[in-house]
Amino acid sequence: MTTKRPTVGVFDSGFGGLTVLRALLQQLPNADFIYLGDTAHLPYGSKSQAMVTRYTDAAIRFLVEQGAELVVIACNTASALALPSLKTNAPVPLVGVIGPGAEAAAAIAPAGSTALVLATEGTVASHAYAQACTEKGLKTVEKACPLFVPLVEEGWTDNSITAQIAEVYLREAIPDAANPPEVIVLGCTHYPLLHALIERIASDIAGPIPVVDSAAATARHTAELLPSATTDAGEPHLRFFATDAASKFQRFAPRFLGREIGHVELADLES
Amino acid sequence: MTTKRPTVGVFDSGFGGLTVLRALLQQLPNADFIYLGDTAHLPYGSKSQAMVTRYTDAAIRFLVEQGAELVVIACNTASALALPSLKTNAPVPLVGVIGPGAEAAAAIAPAGSTALVLATEGTVASHAYAQACTEKGLKTVEKACPLFVPLVEEGWTDNSITAQIAEVYLREAIPDAANPPEVIVLGCTHYPLLHALIERIASDIAGPIPVVDSAAATARHTAELLPSATTDAGEPHLRFFATDAASKFQRFAPRFLGREIGHVELADLES
Repeated sequence: MTTKRPTVGVFDSGFGGLTVLRALLQQLPNADFIYLGDTAHLPYGSKSQAMVTRYTDAAIRFLVEQGAELVVIACNTASALALPSLKTNAPVPLVGVIGPGAEAAAAIAPAGSTALVLATEGTVASHAYAQACTEKGLKTVEKACPLFVPLVEEGWTDNSITAQIAEVYLREAIPDAANPPEVIVLGCTHYPLLHALIERIASDIAGPIPVVDSAAATARHTAELLPSATTDAGEPHLRFFATDAASKFQRFAPRFLGREIGHVELADLES
Repeated sequence: MTTKRPTVGVFDSGFGGLTVLRALLQQLPNADFIYLGDTAHLPYGSKSQAMVTRYTDAAIRFLVEQGAELVVIACNTASALALPSLKTNAPVPLVGVIGPGAEAAAAIAPAGSTALVLATEGTVASHAYAQACTEKGLKTVEKACPLFVPLVEEGWTDNSITAQIAEVYLREAIPDAANPPEVIVLGCTHYPLLHALIERIASDIAGPIPVVDSAAATARHTAELLPSATTDAGEPHLRFFATDAASKFQRFAPRFLGREIGHVELADLES
């Protein structure tokens, strides 16, 4: 007997959450997806909790109207600032990326050791990762890296200037190379595009340190919450929405998703 | 006889327009000012014309409600993308920064020579500077510099990494050092904080090139449009509004305005 394919909403401030959608597509081949990038308001990293919560709330409502039965908040800043207050009254289950990020770190680093979390200003100021890592038995150092998002959006993911900027941030975050963190958590969905570079610079500073992100753990957590898998193994149905500049979204998307995307629809959350 | 002090509204996507307010305060000592930074939606540089026009329209209405008799659009992206369509039906006179920027260039560079305009992606894509410079008899090369705004907001206005990034942008914009532009126009209100650095790097590449911005010319143009100056030479009355994160606005402002500012009020343009 074939059951209905579940529809999962995926929300991010822009393109970055496509790195999470990529992991979801791998682990949930029998689900359909609706992705919404709030490109009219990005970046969230420097905005207040009140504003990020307002935008995230509007995005969840939109995705549910479009048929989402569960919404993945694939944005670390929104997961940190908006998810705690929104999950109580949400019309569908919500999955954030902070808990799964801490889980990915705890799977590698022994209890009592230290995770270095690289994230936006908003995520760092919320200390949401520190709290999630404490729950997993890890200590935390949090470091805001505000230039990483614009560097990724400029396409400078592996050049000498980006390497120097990463070195500035990592040296500030690892003041004692003899006592490095046991794991580095990429606490922003843009940062997986800098994975190799961050791993290399960290190794130059303090020897090899494993680097993890939230994508795979978030996808696993989502799979657990969904109704039992269907036997309908057709191609997943994907819809993409952006709140502004849909053509730019379409151009950037392959860099994050690893494949071309079709038509991007414009979503108006403000009217 | 003392006439009423005029009230001038100044609008920008964030803090950058404070470099224009600084020039206005110098040239219009007998006016009062209301400044609005749309920090909830910044940066405008990568947003579409429709979205920038919607935000700018709401900002003008807000400033007029607060008593502004003239509004300076102290944001190059908004001047480029929104001003042409909004000025026809605006309730008060509007002054942009693109025309004055081209005027400042033409005051230095001889007719027929080339101005290099450094600006955001949105401003460059609009070719508003090319059009304004053509009207002043100048040729134009436009170059988008998307990393400059986040670098200024990170406070990295004079370090070696910013210098290298400026060198990448300027070498791309000046492919033939033997035929450099006659003037460089800073076509974004954040860029005056990089004035010294850009001047130095350009000189290293192609010899001394004068660097100008819109602030002083915009203030002159505003003074011409205002009712005759009053004899009331008291201290100007200043009010500051931001649409989000007012405390961050207060912290950043002195870097752009050259002085501390008082209370920043939160303005809600969306409800």
